[in-house]
Amino acid sequence: MSLPILAITMGDPAGIGPEIIAKALTHPEVHEICHPIVVGDLDAIRAAVAITGVPLRVRGVDDPAAGGHDRASIDVLDLSETRVVSLVRGKVSAEAGRAAYLSLEHATRLALDRRIAGIVTAPLNKEGLSQAGWVGVGHTELLARFCSIPDEAVAMLLVSDQLRVVHVSTHVPLRRAIELVTVERVATTARLGGRATRDIIKRAPRIALAGLNPHAGEHGLFGWEDEQQIVPAARLLAAEGWDVTGPIPPDTVFLRARNREFDCVVAMYHDQGHIPAKLGGFDDTVNVTLGLPIIRTSVDHGTAYDIAGTGKAGEANMLQAIIVAAAMARRVKS
Amino acid sequence: MSLPILAITMGDPAGIGPEIIAKALTHPEVHEICHPIVVGDLDAIRAAVAITGVPLRVRGVDDPAAGGHDRASIDVLDLSETRVVSLVRGKVSAEAGRAAYLSLEHATRLALDRRIAGIVTAPLNKEGLSQAGWVGVGHTELLARFCSIPDEAVAMLLVSDQLRVVHVSTHVPLRRAIELVTVERVATTARLGGRATRDIIKRAPRIALAGLNPHAGEHGLFGWEDEQQIVPAARLLAAEGWDVTGPIPPDTVFLRARNREFDCVVAMYHDQGHIPAKLGGFDDTVNVTLGLPIIRTSVDHGTAYDIAGTGKAGEANMLQAIIVAAAMARRVKS
Repeated sequence: MSLPILAITMGDPAGIGPEIIAKALTHPEVHEICHPIVVGDLDAIRAAVAITGVPLRVRGVDDPAAGGHDRASIDVLDLSETRVVSLVRGKVSAEAGRAAYLSLEHATRLALDRRIAGIVTAPLNKEGLSQAGWVGVGHTELLARFCSIPDEAVAMLLVSDQLRVVHVSTHVPLRRAIELVTVERVATTARLGGRATRDIIKRAPRIALAGLNPHAGEHGLFGWEDEQQIVPAARLLAAEGWDVTGPIPPDTVFLRARNREFDCVVAMYHDQGHIPAKLGGFDDTVNVTLGLPIIRTSVDHGTAYDIAGTGKAGEANMLQAIIVAAAMARRVKS
Repeated sequence: MSLPILAITMGDPAGIGPEIIAKALTHPEVHEICHPIVVGDLDAIRAAVAITGVPLRVRGVDDPAAGGHDRASIDVLDLSETRVVSLVRGKVSAEAGRAAYLSLEHATRLALDRRIAGIVTAPLNKEGLSQAGWVGVGHTELLARFCSIPDEAVAMLLVSDQLRVVHVSTHVPLRRAIELVTVERVATTARLGGRATRDIIKRAPRIALAGLNPHAGEHGLFGWEDEQQIVPAARLLAAEGWDVTGPIPPDTVFLRARNREFDCVVAMYHDQGHIPAKLGGFDDTVNVTLGLPIIRTSVDHGTAYDIAGTGKAGEANMLQAIIVAAAMARRVKS
């Protein structure tokens, strides 16, 4: 069986991205599940290797298919345009923002062209992006744009060992999030989360729909959305063959999922899913963007400018992001 | 120093209430922090002692001041009207509902009359209450009624070792909960939570206000309530001398509190606070009703009809509820 090629974007080179990539690629496990190539700047990766002291050499490659076969080397698809001539670590700059943008754009293009199996993204800095001319956008918006998908069509899945949570909406006001709890959107989100979970766990997932209101509305006593939107969505999903339960009171569904009763929880809004996911531990929580025509996983932390350049940043989350992307890619290939 | 007298209500006698009370009172710790008396039915408590096999005798007392001094006995303020002649454990009945009601009413009256320092409640069954004629109410509504306080004036504080969370609203639709996030209500809730936390931890509490919207609104990008309601509430509280921080993004505030950065979190709605509290573990989470003129703590679980009468029910949560009430009572007395 051939291993999937995964492109790891460099992220903002003034942040910890290059360092956590260098550290993550020292783990033998990575090379057992994928061929990793880094998309970005050869110099930034070389510097990260020096900073972290990892025993890997850095090598430029032209073709993604040629890279990622050697455990002793980090293979970089070098984009000369991403070179930041006067890189200052820990500092926002248009140049670093531009480099992060170009790395992401190039990796996405490779994935869309099926030259790689998926992308794993290191953190970027929104302020840097903004200074470089891409205002008010982050990874998700850029990815949607590159893939010609409307922003609303993507869904965020948070994956940890204990919990998988997909969100009906994310970065919208809570008032608006309530309006987005519709039969159609709940069902679409559950399908996206269900398919991704199946790709990760390699079997039919048990899906739980969280309720929206306290006690899932207690039969209309505390709000009607649970009965009017989530119940019919559950019925629809069951008719399609999904193993689905819900709506379940929001304050117990995550506990039940953590106790292995469910494989994937559909959260009705950003914080309903993010509160339990983040309490479960940052290190192993990976962010997966669903609804794109490509596989994309990401670390769930930022550029950590305060420790960039020190070599202190931990690679556990980046390693997890690679593991999840590889698992999803193996499913897609089979 | 004289210890506070705490009244423990029997709860629904067909549930696990009497059993967890009997088990909790075997802990020597209880008698070091309070004089516990049970308000309810002598026969039900005797039966619970037999079921659980605890080495305590059961004794009727007439005056709360006369009870709770002997570690080897459970002192019961026997209400003859609460006797359930044909008690069937694990079964809803009007008789058991009525007994639970009368036990709560009597204990509350004793607290209002300052004959006891506070009450600790065992679980009741809403269906039993309903069959007995008190429809659609639970502990909180009954307590508010007995104390002549409007329902909206009480606030729910969940207390565990790791986390203390007070709620701006609880059993209302999420749409309505958003409307209740007002400067005044946030400030009132924070004051109630702050005072109770101070009573429990015996020092000035560090209070965190959770945001309402994702990322606490990100300066209006995802909703304005954080800026318009929570920011001014924080300013008001700070001016009053409270150590207050916020609004803090909802998906990180509980993590920070668990890491001991804050002593009390003000949650903007039911599930924002209940999701992290319940993930922290049921056993040690105690429910405290604030805004009443009396101290009241409660177990955070139900009647567990399925195991009532087996002696299997764990007393850990009841023990915690007694410990928290005793801590609060010691403060009030000083």
